Formats: sequence, structure tokens, C-alpha cells
Amino acid sequence: MSQAEPGIEGDAFNADCPGRTVLNHVTSRWGTLILVSLSEGPMRFSTLRDRIGGISEKMLAQNLRVLARDGFVERTVEPSTPPKVSYALTELGTEVTFYLHGLMGWIRSRVGDIVFAQRHHDAHT
Amino acid sequence: MSQAEPGIEGDAFNADCPGRTVLNHVTSRWGTLILVSLSEGPMRFSTLRDRIGGISEKMLAQNLRVLARDGFVERTVEPSTPPKVSYALTELGTEVTFYLHGLMGWIRSRVGDIVFAQRHHDAHT
Repeated sequence: MSQAEPGIEGDAFNADCPGRTVLNHVTSRWGTLILVSLSEGPMRFSTLRDRIGGISEKMLAQNLRVLARDGFVERTVEPSTPPKVSYALTELGTEVTFYLHGLMGWIRSRVGDIVFAQRHHDAHT
Repeated sequence: MSQAEPGIEGDAFNADCPGRTVLNHVTSRWGTLILVSLSEGPMRFSTLRDRIGGISEKMLAQNLRVLARDGFVERTVEPSTPPKVSYALTELGTEVTFYLHGLMGWIRSRVGDIVFAQRHHDAHT
């Protein structure tokens, strides 16, 4: 039984469409790296921060809030002393991360060709 | 025969790695929409501009330059009067767009669930 809102257009080519906003969230500067990190399993805030080179705590917190609001990430507080907070992908988050994972794996395997193209371009312009 | 530069690390989790830069280009605010548009076939500048809601000519030109330098997009000038300029995906561009296409299709099919999650979140915080 789907709980989806009916009649919502997901066309990301339309600037006024929710699909554009979602595309911007999952492909944001940090969004992709956070989602792919969490595909390894639930993580504490500090683990995520250390895993993603160059991210600030402010940016990490802000992106986690956006991704939680979209339903991609779930925040869990364990009632211990001190409370332990962890973040995990939801089912929706696991689905979207499948595509991001493929993209990042492709970049890893082809980065040499891309750097070659950049150097070739710079030498001829 | 690969022309790839040897020994280049494509780990996008590392902020100093070329893989991070490439990830930022293909998932930039406009990069994804430009690449997916061009997967329909070669296009003139004005067609691309009209296809992608909200993009300015300045942003389109700038993103096309970045994607051409990375080797994803090829610019062709036909020697007519006036000269016709068109843009097309290269082999590398076609490969990366495969993943972006999958991502956008998924967003289109699931946007209702995501908007539902957003409204649920806003009603409970």
C-alpha cells in the first residue's frame, strides 16, 4: 500500500517541480557522499564526519536534516548516558543510494580517462 | 588501448582526489540535467536552454565548458552561415549519463513518497 501523495510531478527538468528539489538534495555537494557512506551501515555523526573528507560539522548536520526530511535518512537516539545518536538509510534512502553507488563506482574506474581528457583539453586551448 | 593517466585515485570521499571534482561536476546543480538532456541526441545551445527550466545562458555555457573539459561533452561547429554549434555526449559522457538517467527515473517514480515523507516530517517537528 503506497502512501505517496497523488498527482505530484517528478520532472526534474521543470524548475518548479518537487523532482528538481529532490535531485538537488541527493546530488548536492555532500548529499551523495553522506548517502553512499550510510550504505555501509548505520553510523554515528563523528564517524560520518571522519569518513567524508572536507565536510564541516555544520554542513553535515544541515545535510542530514534535509535528507531526513526527504525520508532518506533516519535518526535514532539510544537512551544511554550520554545518549548515542546514529543515522541510517531508510528503505527510500537505500533505493536512491543504489544509483549513487553505481555513479561513484564508475567515476572511480574511469577517473584516469577523465583526467587525461582534462589535460588534453588544457594543452589545446 | 586505454589512454588513462596511471595512478590517479578516484576516491570521491577524499577532498583532494580528482574523483571528488568529477563527482561535483556531474552532480552539479545543472550538470546532471545537461547530461541527461544530451542523452536524447546532439542539441543546439538554445534547445538545451529551453529544455532545462530555470537555467541561465551564462550557467549553461559555463557548465558545458566544464563538461567538455572533462571529456563528457563534445562541441561541434558546422561551417555554415551563420555557423551552427551543437553539443553531444562523448562515449565517456554516455557512460556516466547511464547512472544519472537511472537516478532521475527513480526520482520521477518515487517523488510522491518523498513529498509524503516531507509533509509527515513537517507535521511532527
